Amino acid sequence: MSLDDAANRIEQALRHALARSCGRSAPPRIAAAMQHAVFPGGQRIRPRLTLSIAAACGDDVPLLSAAGAAAVELLHCASLVHDDMPCFDNAGIRRGRPSVHAAYGEQIALLSGDGLIVLAFETVALAAAADPLRAAALSGVVARAVGMPYGIVAGQAWESEPSPDLVAYQRAKTGSLFAGASMAGAAAAGHDAEPWGALGFCLGEAYQVADDIRDVLCSEAEIGKPIGQDEALGRPNMVRELGVAGAARRLKDLVDEAVASVPACPGQTVLRAEIQSQASRFLPREASRVAA
Amino acid sequence: MSLDDAANRIEQALRHALARSCGRSAPPRIAAAMQHAVFPGGQRIRPRLTLSIAAACGDDVPLLSAAGAAAVELLHCASLVHDDMPCFDNAGIRRGRPSVHAAYGEQIALLSGDGLIVLAFETVALAAAADPLRAAALSGVVARAVGMPYGIVAGQAWESEPSPDLVAYQRAKTGSLFAGASMAGAAAAGHDAEPWGALGFCLGEAYQVADDIRDVLCSEAEIGKPIGQDEALGRPNMVRELGVAGAARRLKDLVDEAVASVPACPGQTVLRAEIQSQASRFLPREASRVAA
Repeated sequence: MSLDDAANRIEQALRHALARSCGRSAPPRIAAAMQHAVFPGGQRIRPRLTLSIAAACGDDVPLLSAAGAAAVELLHCASLVHDDMPCFDNAGIRRGRPSVHAAYGEQIALLSGDGLIVLAFETVALAAAADPLRAAALSGVVARAVGMPYGIVAGQAWESEPSPDLVAYQRAKTGSLFAGASMAGAAAAGHDAEPWGALGFCLGEAYQVADDIRDVLCSEAEIGKPIGQDEALGRPNMVRELGVAGAARRLKDLVDEAVASVPACPGQTVLRAEIQSQASRFLPREASRVAA
Repeated sequence: MSLDDAANRIEQALRHALARSCGRSAPPRIAAAMQHAVFPGGQRIRPRLTLSIAAACGDDVPLLSAAGAAAVELLHCASLVHDDMPCFDNAGIRRGRPSVHAAYGEQIALLSGDGLIVLAFETVALAAAADPLRAAALSGVVARAVGMPYGIVAGQAWESEPSPDLVAYQRAKTGSLFAGASMAGAAAAGHDAEPWGALGFCLGEAYQVADDIRDVLCSEAEIGKPIGQDEALGRPNMVRELGVAGAARRLKDLVDEAVASVPACPGQTVLRAEIQSQASRFLPREASRVAA
């Protein structure tokens, strides 16, 4: 499967899901806000991971892997909408445009996030006829990645604790959805999902380090959201801890670790190359040069 | 199945779900907030409906009907948490205690609602091994009841529209989850869910009329939340439209209509009696006397 094929399958699955839920009978403002939250997207890193792993595992029920990829991305978008709200980051800009609450207000932003969460699970349920047992595994894997006690909801909730468990926080905030994206690909292809979690956690941590580097090195225009937020919000940042070169080394090590962790599967070699290639896009080109 | 059995099965399924997601490894404040949102509960009208209908349809996979009932109630609780938030009703009191945002703050309230939504779908996924095909139907039915374009998220979103479609609003805001609760019971028992939707919509409308009567006739202590909210918030209220006696007549007609709509099933007679009995609890005794 070429990268373009993957991109097309992801956008198509997302378009179908949104068309179903945000059509003419829907209240217009929330329908527009949900579209705004999902299109145009970012790099779609997580659903790409789902499809890459499904392909490596045979992808014999492509309807289900596409549904899994869409679910993972819808949940990611939902988390961005809620995280940007005034009671959290109060971020007015996302992906270079007004965030959902900035464009549609708090009520609609809150409801849009809720609607996207539900749509994720509905998307899996609607694809279940193709293989109900795998669909149930997929739904469970995705729920674990976003819910309590280890998913992104828990990650965000650790930020509201007076003395957060920092390891649990980082794993839950970023790692869990990468792990879920990985496991979703395996589950959709009928493989045991558990062994694929480690790969996702490594990639999630790598992505977090890259995000820390971006927050320090990039311009707002390059990454489409405010920079210097970690310092402003007092969040841990790997660049402050290890310096730029140290953080870049850590990023490389984590991607190597992710590649090494790929479980035995028919497409193991291709998948390893794809992970290296996708991870090279975690940083904009300019930042890669500076960090090298 | 006696009413006590049903109540026990619902509380047990909810306790299991919360124990799984809010145990010792969870961030403590959100874990406490999710417990606060679910226990002690209200009348558990929706999950009771799920179990009554599952029983009438044979309830041969009780693990699945209990999961469906729990999912419906978790989604109901999630909607209350988000509806009470400052950007919507800004309600400080719920079920006679501080609402979740009043007790735990906005951040935790937002995340608790998200966590409860995810937990609902995870609960169904975890019960799926018992019958994956029915579980998929159950998950889809429940998603439709809460999501877009016809579920409670849509209902709440209609309130943010300058010229809402009032029929779509009422059906989505209250009717949809009653319809979902009904269809979930049928789906869990392996029956076609669709024919059970009408019963739920009638009961949902009846419940809404009862709520309108409560809002006008009852004291705050009796219903555990502020009264006179419809007038204060400019919402339609059936008592203002038809008077108390007219609204009470409408309530009775709707319950009769619900009873008449029960599809053919092994337990049809018992179910009809149960619906009448459960609907009689929509109004506190004092209000029933005044409205009679």
